[in-house]
Amino acid sequence: MSTQLQHRLYQALDALPLVDSHSHIQPLQASARSLWDILGYHYYTELAHACGMPSSVVLNPNMAENDRVRALIQYLPALENTTQYQWFIELAQTFFGFEDERLSTNNWEALAETVAQRTAQPDWSSKVLQTTGLGSVFLTNDFDDPLEGFDTSVFVPCLRCDEWVFKLNETHVRQRLVECTQNSLGNLYQLNLALGTVFEHFLRKGARACAVSLPPGFVALHIDDAQAERAWAHMLANTDTSDDRATLACWMVWTLAQHCAAHHLPFCLMIGAQRGVYRAGIPLGQDLFDSRVSLMQYAELFNAFPDVRFPVSLLASAGNQELAACAWIFPNVITNGHWWYSGIPTLIERDLAVRLECVPQTKQIAYYSDMFKLEFGLPKFRMYKRSLAKVLAERFVQDQGWSERRAFELGQTVLQNNALSVYGVDSNTVQHTHPLQALAG
Amino acid sequence: MSTQLQHRLYQALDALPLVDSHSHIQPLQASARSLWDILGYHYYTELAHACGMPSSVVLNPNMAENDRVRALIQYLPALENTTQYQWFIELAQTFFGFEDERLSTNNWEALAETVAQRTAQPDWSSKVLQTTGLGSVFLTNDFDDPLEGFDTSVFVPCLRCDEWVFKLNETHVRQRLVECTQNSLGNLYQLNLALGTVFEHFLRKGARACAVSLPPGFVALHIDDAQAERAWAHMLANTDTSDDRATLACWMVWTLAQHCAAHHLPFCLMIGAQRGVYRAGIPLGQDLFDSRVSLMQYAELFNAFPDVRFPVSLLASAGNQELAACAWIFPNVITNGHWWYSGIPTLIERDLAVRLECVPQTKQIAYYSDMFKLEFGLPKFRMYKRSLAKVLAERFVQDQGWSERRAFELGQTVLQNNALSVYGVDSNTVQHTHPLQALAG
Amino acid sequence: MSTQLQHRLYQALDALPLVDSHSHIQPLQASARSLWDILGYHYYTELAHACGMPSSVVLNPNMAENDRVRALIQYLPALENTTQYQWFIELAQTFFGFEDERLSTNNWEALAETVAQRTAQPDWSSKVLQTTGLGSVFLTNDFDDPLEGFDTSVFVPCLRCDEWVFKLNETHVRQRLVECTQNSLGNLYQLNLALGTVFEHFLRKGARACAVSLPPGFVALHIDDAQAERAWAHMLANTDTSDDRATLACWMVWTLAQHCAAHHLPFCLMIGAQRGVYRAGIPLGQDLFDSRVSLMQYAELFNAFPDVRFPVSLLASAGNQELAACAWIFPNVITNGHWWYSGIPTLIERDLAVRLECVPQTKQIAYYSDMFKLEFGLPKFRMYKRSLAKVLAERFVQDQGWSERRAFELGQTVLQNNALSVYGVDSNTVQHTHPLQALAG
Repeated sequence: MSTQLQHRLYQALDALPLVDSHSHIQPLQASARSLWDILGYHYYTELAHACGMPSSVVLNPNMAENDRVRALIQYLPALENTTQYQWFIELAQTFFGFEDERLSTNNWEALAETVAQRTAQPDWSSKVLQTTGLGSVFLTNDFDDPLEGFDTSVFVPCLRCDEWVFKLNETHVRQRLVECTQNSLGNLYQLNLALGTVFEHFLRKGARACAVSLPPGFVALHIDDAQAERAWAHMLANTDTSDDRATLACWMVWTLAQHCAAHHLPFCLMIGAQRGVYRAGIPLGQDLFDSRVSLMQYAELFNAFPDVRFPVSLLASAGNQELAACAWIFPNVITNGHWWYSGIPTLIERDLAVRLECVPQTKQIAYYSDMFKLEFGLPKFRMYKRSLAKVLAERFVQDQGWSERRAFELGQTVLQNNALSVYGVDSNTVQHTHPLQALAG
Repeated sequence: MSTQLQHRLYQALDALPLVDSHSHIQPLQASARSLWDILGYHYYTELAHACGMPSSVVLNPNMAENDRVRALIQYLPALENTTQYQWFIELAQTFFGFEDERLSTNNWEALAETVAQRTAQPDWSSKVLQTTGLGSVFLTNDFDDPLEGFDTSVFVPCLRCDEWVFKLNETHVRQRLVECTQNSLGNLYQLNLALGTVFEHFLRKGARACAVSLPPGFVALHIDDAQAERAWAHMLANTDTSDDRATLACWMVWTLAQHCAAHHLPFCLMIGAQRGVYRAGIPLGQDLFDSRVSLMQYAELFNAFPDVRFPVSLLASAGNQELAACAWIFPNVITNGHWWYSGIPTLIERDLAVRLECVPQTKQIAYYSDMFKLEFGLPKFRMYKRSLAKVLAERFVQDQGWSERRAFELGQTVLQNNALSVYGVDSNTVQHTHPLQALAG
Repeated sequence: MSTQLQHRLYQALDALPLVDSHSHIQPLQASARSLWDILGYHYYTELAHACGMPSSVVLNPNMAENDRVRALIQYLPALENTTQYQWFIELAQTFFGFEDERLSTNNWEALAETVAQRTAQPDWSSKVLQTTGLGSVFLTNDFDDPLEGFDTSVFVPCLRCDEWVFKLNETHVRQRLVECTQNSLGNLYQLNLALGTVFEHFLRKGARACAVSLPPGFVALHIDDAQAERAWAHMLANTDTSDDRATLACWMVWTLAQHCAAHHLPFCLMIGAQRGVYRAGIPLGQDLFDSRVSLMQYAELFNAFPDVRFPVSLLASAGNQELAACAWIFPNVITNGHWWYSGIPTLIERDLAVRLECVPQTKQIAYYSDMFKLEFGLPKFRMYKRSLAKVLAERFVQDQGWSERRAFELGQTVLQNNALSVYGVDSNTVQHTHPLQALAG
């Protein structure tokens, strides 16, 4: 019974058109063009590397894509148990008519050919979005992205600010900011004007969020203006110390929150990634996390900006209870997705059940894909929807006697409605997922 | 089958008369008098505030109770998924004949009237206790509480020591201690005598526990007498530094343990609340926690006082394995309830299963309500009993082949017996829950 | 259905002959000789002590074994809920024909007699290994263990290095190293030669791993040679400071990794035990852990030794997600068992499910017994296999539609194959578990 109930709830949830509120999609080439575009996703290359695949399979610039695939496939049997592998099988079956349960040296070439053929269709990206049930997909844009050449109602710009927080000590980053804004950066007032110029550009282009990834040790403190100004002077003179950089990182997060307040833009905090831990790792497969992080490190920020909504993602599942508690009492804290290392069913179910039991249903953004290619939206969202259906079935219908209808509606709220309302996306976006046309790629 | 088994176990557990070993009940007005007395519980006001309700609904001294309820009800739909909301529905249905599954602008006035009528009955508190199956309820008393005017075998005094640990730097707190003990506080010897006077007063009134809430950063160190004496001199002169205050907090916890040892009184440690994090929050809805806490911070205290039993509650579920391990080897550590942010079914089941699998059954106090009004005992204990029945059914009957009888007896031990034996409560208290009469309110 | 499926998977897994890759077995007396040899296991003495048993029952050198058992049995009813108690009942039933579900004052003497009789059989250890399905059992050997007098293909030597890391400041430990290697230790070059001598001795005797237990605060840093040399000079002069000892502990871990690299020996890290926390505890029942530990403390070690495989065990389940993430990207990190306080079904299932969902199946060593007497291998491994069967049934067959066969094969990989391949054990070891003969004890 429970299995059937779960399946019925899953089916109902899977029929809902959605917004994907965080991805790394390149809008001018949103979908894959080859099997390597799919298997080259860091989830596969890092796992294969962890099983012995040399990093040259990824890094060697002279290697043909099919040779990369051939090399990687040797290591796939070791990964067949993983959730990541299941994503691959499900997308291959759904989008490319793959019928086996494993990819091997025997069947990959046929699949590679199908992938090449189908993804060459001019409306392929639209088809993928439609099959996946996505009305729009949020992007991750550098501050100097022109945001040109694509339909920003489908591919929604989001301003990613990591470079401003952690890289302004690099001359060429400051130079890019000067170039794209035509502001000079001689003091913090001018820097702030430059930021404002970028915000306005992004807003004109329909940006819906500002986002930043912060390491586990980051503490969001308010910085005294004079202290920040001194640090900035050092940075401009290239005499900045690590203290100066830490000072300016805090100043920048605070300043970004001010811009978000001024523009009613949600400020997405992605907390916990320690970058470059495994130095010989595959690109994007070098980062880990330190579980010893607390949202108390952000308490002053949440207090200082009551009008800014903060969708918060944590890399370490250990912090989920703190996140739920923050969303439970802070009006401006919203639980956001199940990020990266926390995005596997066991952890999703555990963290989700806590959220559904104590965080107001309107303050939870269920899931985002974080994908680099559109094809991954389907298996990743389906994984999440299965977990959601399971938790709703077990903890609400079975344990609390809720009707299926009521459980479904709770699922719909967190899965569909909240992303629309938090980010101010027109609900028509998800009503009309069909006529997506003329998309690049 | 499992669902039926679970239900049978729940029914058997629900029939057990219990002691509630921690609450914030005011014995002279133990039960609610109005719907606002119920919905004004911080669990609702803080959640509603987190969904946008202005804090003035709680804080405005000129607002009528029904206007507060009317204002709060607008925000309830956002909370319908929460465990806290289910507590409300279950108590409304059980005590006030409420028949709907949601409280809304359409049905609240009828409910408010019923609440006003029924709670005006002179024996209402007795009825609530009887329906809930509670023989006695422990209180949370300030050190200068006269403990007069109520039946202390039903409402059991407990000495709450937070003010002594953290507020003796405030002149008026010291003044209250002088007034209620007639001791002067010129040095630590005199202070200690004053504490002893209070302990004796509480014991004469039937107190069964001493309790203190400690923040996540607190480390229970032994303090050298001379160092403590210097700090106390500074405090009396109002020249105390934060170091002095920290010194005296440690000294006080140690000294309280000495008094508990002398009087064979359990010393309840409630560990992890960070007070006042969200400064604009609703009263009692401002506190959070930092998961980065370890019971190693208390190892010296546990070592130093082998004859004091320490029922330990943690705010962060992340510490549950440490707590279980401490109770597994330290004779004087007892797992105590599922406190506040950890008191939702998903976390209760997770933490409880660990405790039942590795902590001696006699060293676990299952649950306490922490309630402010008697009506909440029923839904909160029922929530816990459902979780207990579930874990017993799945992990003991199903996984290990225990008989239902044996599983029930394990449940009875943790739910009923241990609070009696740890706190030295006469078992007649829970044998005769019926003739509770002449209770105030 | 799920229960039957679980049982079928359990039966299939239970038929697999295994290697137990970590134990504290004394090969010259591998199995118990008396009931006290079984009930004297620290899991029982520490739990009984936590329920009030005086430590003299263990420590009094003049107490007869049966008097110890009689004294301990009084405290057993308090532990009947624990997993540890279930181990005892299962082994008593399997090996000694015990038919009750509880051990009591009424039935222990008959059991004690049966234990004495059966364990006196000359081939008892072989029978226990055969019944348990163990082809070989890894030991924990001090550096100066002669490794003589037993079949090292059955009882596999492993070099335990805690003394080198943390005790070389004790003169008699250095003296033992001098004696067993005939090396002088006048400088670090000479110390290193001595270590090399021990490694070679162990390898000649068939050692398969080097292991060390590290406290939660340990950070594996690379130490500058000159700094280490100075610290060693202080240590030899008995003028070492705590800084010197910390320096040399880091130097030693690094140096051990170099030896492991040279000899292709896995380096098992057992992370998190805080020794001697409860000072009045039963021996082996004094240690606890601090959950505030991160594998980031080992990142430099993992980076520096890409050719050394590090099977990592964590005492705190809180670190499991970090461990899984490290094994997910670091080629040389392997998840290893469910250690000590983390070895109860609820925690095993939770941690195992995460590993099976995101760590390559070849990089997980499922379980080791950590036992002191051979009889515990059976109930401990069976406990693990039940958890494994449960997770495979629920998360792979039920949730993902895997065939039972495929789920079993995943179980076999983690349970049987990986220990063989990681430690380089001949697979014949587990093919022929039957003709184990002529074992001591």
